[in-house]
Amino acid sequence: MTSPLRLGIAGIGTVGTGTIRILQRHADLLEARGGRPIEIKAVSSRNRNKDRGVRLGEYEWEDDPVALARRDDIDVFVELIGGEDGPAKDAVEAAIEAGHDVVTANKALLAHHGQALAERAEAQGAVLRFEAAVAGGIPCVKALTEGLAGNEITRVMGVMNGTCNYILTRMESAGLTYDQVFAEASELGYLEADPTLDVGGIDAGHKLALLASIAFGTKVDFDGVALEGIERIKIEDIRHAADMGFAVKLLGVAQMTGRGLEARMSPCLVPQTSPLGQLDGATNMVVLDGDAVGQVVLRGAGAGEGPTASAVLSDIVDIARGNRVSTFGQPAARLVPARRAEAATPAPFYLRMVLTDRPGALAKIAARLGEAGISIDRMRQYDHTEGSAPVLIVTHRAMRRALDEAIDAMADTGVLEGEIVALRIEDV
Amino acid sequence: MTSPLRLGIAGIGTVGTGTIRILQRHADLLEARGGRPIEIKAVSSRNRNKDRGVRLGEYEWEDDPVALARRDDIDVFVELIGGEDGPAKDAVEAAIEAGHDVVTANKALLAHHGQALAERAEAQGAVLRFEAAVAGGIPCVKALTEGLAGNEITRVMGVMNGTCNYILTRMESAGLTYDQVFAEASELGYLEADPTLDVGGIDAGHKLALLASIAFGTKVDFDGVALEGIERIKIEDIRHAADMGFAVKLLGVAQMTGRGLEARMSPCLVPQTSPLGQLDGATNMVVLDGDAVGQVVLRGAGAGEGPTASAVLSDIVDIARGNRVSTFGQPAARLVPARRAEAATPAPFYLRMVLTDRPGALAKIAARLGEAGISIDRMRQYDHTEGSAPVLIVTHRAMRRALDEAIDAMADTGVLEGEIVALRIEDV
Repeated sequence: MTSPLRLGIAGIGTVGTGTIRILQRHADLLEARGGRPIEIKAVSSRNRNKDRGVRLGEYEWEDDPVALARRDDIDVFVELIGGEDGPAKDAVEAAIEAGHDVVTANKALLAHHGQALAERAEAQGAVLRFEAAVAGGIPCVKALTEGLAGNEITRVMGVMNGTCNYILTRMESAGLTYDQVFAEASELGYLEADPTLDVGGIDAGHKLALLASIAFGTKVDFDGVALEGIERIKIEDIRHAADMGFAVKLLGVAQMTGRGLEARMSPCLVPQTSPLGQLDGATNMVVLDGDAVGQVVLRGAGAGEGPTASAVLSDIVDIARGNRVSTFGQPAARLVPARRAEAATPAPFYLRMVLTDRPGALAKIAARLGEAGISIDRMRQYDHTEGSAPVLIVTHRAMRRALDEAIDAMADTGVLEGEIVALRIEDV
Repeated sequence: MTSPLRLGIAGIGTVGTGTIRILQRHADLLEARGGRPIEIKAVSSRNRNKDRGVRLGEYEWEDDPVALARRDDIDVFVELIGGEDGPAKDAVEAAIEAGHDVVTANKALLAHHGQALAERAEAQGAVLRFEAAVAGGIPCVKALTEGLAGNEITRVMGVMNGTCNYILTRMESAGLTYDQVFAEASELGYLEADPTLDVGGIDAGHKLALLASIAFGTKVDFDGVALEGIERIKIEDIRHAADMGFAVKLLGVAQMTGRGLEARMSPCLVPQTSPLGQLDGATNMVVLDGDAVGQVVLRGAGAGEGPTASAVLSDIVDIARGNRVSTFGQPAARLVPARRAEAATPAPFYLRMVLTDRPGALAKIAARLGEAGISIDRMRQYDHTEGSAPVLIVTHRAMRRALDEAIDAMADTGVLEGEIVALRIEDV
């Protein structure tokens, strides 16, 4: 075990640079902890000549990540390219075929192809690990897979997209509109190249799908995650929520119900005084409920060079130490298909809409809710202007399906201006 | 790897019962996750005939835990007896000599003998694991040892004794005295047989010493932890703290300073709005700072049957999976002696004292602080009664050593009634 662990690192962007920096700075510490030297053998990236502020000259260079993945002088292929298909997928597949262990930070790749990749890796006797793909520096994959291995997990919950949490908390603290903060986040470089990955809840949905697979022993089922983004949240939603003692968070919840696995990633109202409600800025939080342990809450930086590289190193040191845990905590071939239970648990909902100001408009809306079996906890008309009347409604506990039926029926009344914003209220 | 992992469990109290219950209830789940069946082969406890509400008839029984530890038909010896010496130590030593892996929840044993036991285990090729010894169900040993293995750890901090946190938060919320809540906790069975282990900070100090060893690569040095208990905290301290926006917590801090390792477990004032300040009841929190990851915060139940058994199972499943990480994250023989730096970092301090009510008394106290180079941020006399004058002082940042000198000098002035309560203010 004193032979070095040889790495091939593909993708030298933010996370790749951070990973190389740690490997250079802490070589002795990592050798002590891993029980053997950990060496970078070769690297690959799109642009060889870019100055990344880190020494690369001592490593062999491959222009093609697939060629790097196939080298027979590496033990672990570290995939930090990103993207659900293309070179990242090709290279990871090539590495597995070559029998190499793989460490990746790529949630999109795993959310779409993780099941097939994990099965293939296991058939090859290789490990495929992804701590850095979920919640940045928070060691939540390890906590769930290993730390809570004695538990039947009942629920996985979390705020797992720092950009969305930054936008929502900044709207609240600075009193800015969604568009203003979105522009600000874009300037700061907080957004993905395709920002709908962030604000559409897709990136966070990828992460939730991966955690759900470990938690419930089910095949990765990203398509089973009910996704809603934060694009329709207005500053007035955040203010109404605050008036009622709630904060708006893009919250992921996966839980096993009597009807199957319910998984959703959507903006929700959570109590301001709860740990989730108090989570500010780009920080992430993962909440794990187990039958023996009760609730464990993990908080930390969800993105950034250092935190994400820290997670990559966790997987690399594990491999150096000989920890060969399965990708999803048990053999991928044993995972069962997730039986999808859409919106199986009821909750109160917050509704905001604008009505045309004419007699009986509000009565029509209330009637549609009543017909769907949904009772109203409180209702308030506010900021009334000539011609239009904004309305805020909080329902009693209702099923999402019934609510969606009511919303469809409301649209047919002809008294609505624009769309209804409907946010689940989670008493977490 | 499909041969069963055979356990010998010694000590069937609360945690032992919980561990057996999980092994019975989740046999299939544990086999799927561990990659092999996990079986209880034999058990040992003081009283064979006690009804523990769990089936034991199918296991072989040993009256003597040392005999259990030596059996050649077990793979892992699970020590849940407790106590720093006596049968727990004898049995763990016997198990290691027999080449068995050991899982223990015994912080006292490891804080005193962990260094020698880990060295001996490694020489035998056995692993010695202790997730359940620190912060109950929170997988903090794993997070630190494995999850943050890529970091130079700069600080480990936490509230790690649920009983003390229960007493302090209950004093605050119910307005009861220390003695009243202590009696209540005793009736509820929250206290150790020797309650000074809890309220004296010893139990929490054991845990801090273990985490510090992993964090800084130093030999376990419990004697190097500066210990203070919560016995002298009065309801008025908690109220004064609250008036200033602070909560009183028994807080452990271990950090590497330029002068060496500073480790202390003492009641401190922390901001009410901080995660530590908001920690209520018997919950524990561990805060880990690393150079790459930044800060990771972990929260969960610090004690109790389910949470502690969850942690025991984490170690057992790890062993089933073939994870053979070293006790303290690197070979015990490589750990370096901790260079002790007592109170190397300055902080503001809260001081409460009662002065005899005579002219110049307060001036004498202020003069002693000034002579020690400690400046006063605020000072207040309150609840003045005939003959005695309670005084509250908040200092600017000072070294603990200088403060202790000033306190000694104050005692010589003859104006003090009783002892001075001095609490560090941690801006965490």
